[in-house]
Amino acid sequence: MEDILFFLEIMGTVAFAISGAVLGIRKRMDIFGVSILGLTTGVGGGIIRDLIVGNNPPLTFQDPVYLVVSIITSIIVFLPVIRTWIFRETRFYEALMLLFDSIGLGIFTVNGIQTAYQSTNIHGIILLAFVGVITGCGGGVLRDMMAGDRPYIFVKHFYASASLLGALACILLWNRIGYGGAMLLGATSIVVLRLLAARNHWSLPKADLPEE
Amino acid sequence: MEDILFFLEIMGTVAFAISGAVLGIRKRMDIFGVSILGLTTGVGGGIIRDLIVGNNPPLTFQDPVYLVVSIITSIIVFLPVIRTWIFRETRFYEALMLLFDSIGLGIFTVNGIQTAYQSTNIHGIILLAFVGVITGCGGGVLRDMMAGDRPYIFVKHFYASASLLGALACILLWNRIGYGGAMLLGATSIVVLRLLAARNHWSLPKADLPEE
Amino acid sequence: MEDILFFLEIMGTVAFAISGAVLGIRKRMDIFGVSILGLTTGVGGGIIRDLIVGNNPPLTFQDPVYLVVSIITSIIVFLPVIRTWIFRETRFYEALMLLFDSIGLGIFTVNGIQTAYQSTNIHGIILLAFVGVITGCGGGVLRDMMAGDRPYIFVKHFYASASLLGALACILLWNRIGYGGAMLLGATSIVVLRLLAARNHWSLPKADLPEE
Repeated sequence: MEDILFFLEIMGTVAFAISGAVLGIRKRMDIFGVSILGLTTGVGGGIIRDLIVGNNPPLTFQDPVYLVVSIITSIIVFLPVIRTWIFRETRFYEALMLLFDSIGLGIFTVNGIQTAYQSTNIHGIILLAFVGVITGCGGGVLRDMMAGDRPYIFVKHFYASASLLGALACILLWNRIGYGGAMLLGATSIVVLRLLAARNHWSLPKADLPEE
Repeated sequence: MEDILFFLEIMGTVAFAISGAVLGIRKRMDIFGVSILGLTTGVGGGIIRDLIVGNNPPLTFQDPVYLVVSIITSIIVFLPVIRTWIFRETRFYEALMLLFDSIGLGIFTVNGIQTAYQSTNIHGIILLAFVGVITGCGGGVLRDMMAGDRPYIFVKHFYASASLLGALACILLWNRIGYGGAMLLGATSIVVLRLLAARNHWSLPKADLPEE
Repeated sequence: MEDILFFLEIMGTVAFAISGAVLGIRKRMDIFGVSILGLTTGVGGGIIRDLIVGNNPPLTFQDPVYLVVSIITSIIVFLPVIRTWIFRETRFYEALMLLFDSIGLGIFTVNGIQTAYQSTNIHGIILLAFVGVITGCGGGVLRDMMAGDRPYIFVKHFYASASLLGALACILLWNRIGYGGAMLLGATSIVVLRLLAARNHWSLPKADLPEE
């Protein structure tokens, strides 16, 4: 089970690093900027998680594997043959960003819940859910703020909502089916919800304002 | 006295959550985005405060009341009947943002000072004042950065200045009239200074540059 | 040696505070906004460093000298006679920003490494290097994000790259020539690399995209 969780964390890191590197390329950054944006996205959620739960120094700085994986991923994305393939057509790029960002969101949401369970006395459902959502969304919010974009979380339908629903599922199942199953189901439901939302153009009500 | 302080903290949270939710509606976010921006503004200053003074995990994650209050406030602001009333005319909207932002600024500034006194060995006047200002301004700065605006603190006359003056008043009175009175007077003076500054168009000197 | 390091830290703080204050003036902020941006840039890297390595509360809040130096520096930069001289011509302004930003980058990069050595069990080369880079770049990234600019780090050639190379030099020399010499050489090499990169227009490969 530990192995599966480790594998999923690496997968979430790779997914977020790809989303960061792709955005960096789109913003015409050089290879170093692309790597930094990939790195920030890949490990940013985990650093925010550790600052919140009080892991000092953050785990990323104790065990370099996530950091190294983020940078290697970013450099691979930057390779001409890869990036040409990614940017071949806009729809493919959009789909890729959606998929990888969703996977990272799902994995880091349940990872934040697990860390909060292990490292703190935070065991109330509302609070666990929020640590999960912040861990899941943190890397992407940092990515967008550093690249100068309005955070994705406010623009794309059903982003933090999916994270929150999956977090609640994970927490409610935690003591019933074991933490491993709860995390897998929670993360999967986040990815599925995000993809369904994108496919079916789900959206939440927006305010219509008279002026401006 | 504890009851009064708790009431004021809830009031500051509500005030900041309103300012965040109103900005989210103005930026045409959906109900979830509006809630997140309201939540970030409502509890952001307190989280920054706790990261600085070393409360791990931040109190917001230990006691969910501020978090829940922020979200409920944001949802109420989003209700069509409420938001239509808020956005009826621009001047009313401006006045509302000013008032609630000032109340939040005042309350969180003195709250930051109190937390620094209690949780750390930071008792020098300059340092207490800065923890107060950072706690007071932090939620609003996060709000504006996440919404993609230049932080209010740099644009609106007499924002951090009011926070700093009120913080100094609070600290100087702390041992003379007791912390409760010092906090009430400090917070009140911040709100009054901000409103006077807005009414009378006080402003600090700006540099006039030749080029650009 | 402690005296030299303290002198260098003050110099880095002054350099970053100048870069923040100059950007604030350019953005037409008032004297308070200019001071806040100078302060954020001057002490921001150190606060991020302390959050990462777990110094609670951050040293800036325990020893006010850096904070006071940042504010005094910002106010001096704001003085009409000084700012007129700084903004006399654009090339002079550009050169000044480059020089002071480079000095701050160099000093805070090696300072981050030293703090990580002293305060944590982080002694792996990759990790020490990243704490150094984050400490060095953090103040400038905060400055640019608060001023509403795309972070300098992504735009200017050879920014974080210089920080990383200097960090690696510093770490590799640490046990060979002593930490004092390693820090001086590391910081100097960062400044020299940045200035050479600017003079010779070094740049790293960028992706060329078909669309947009």
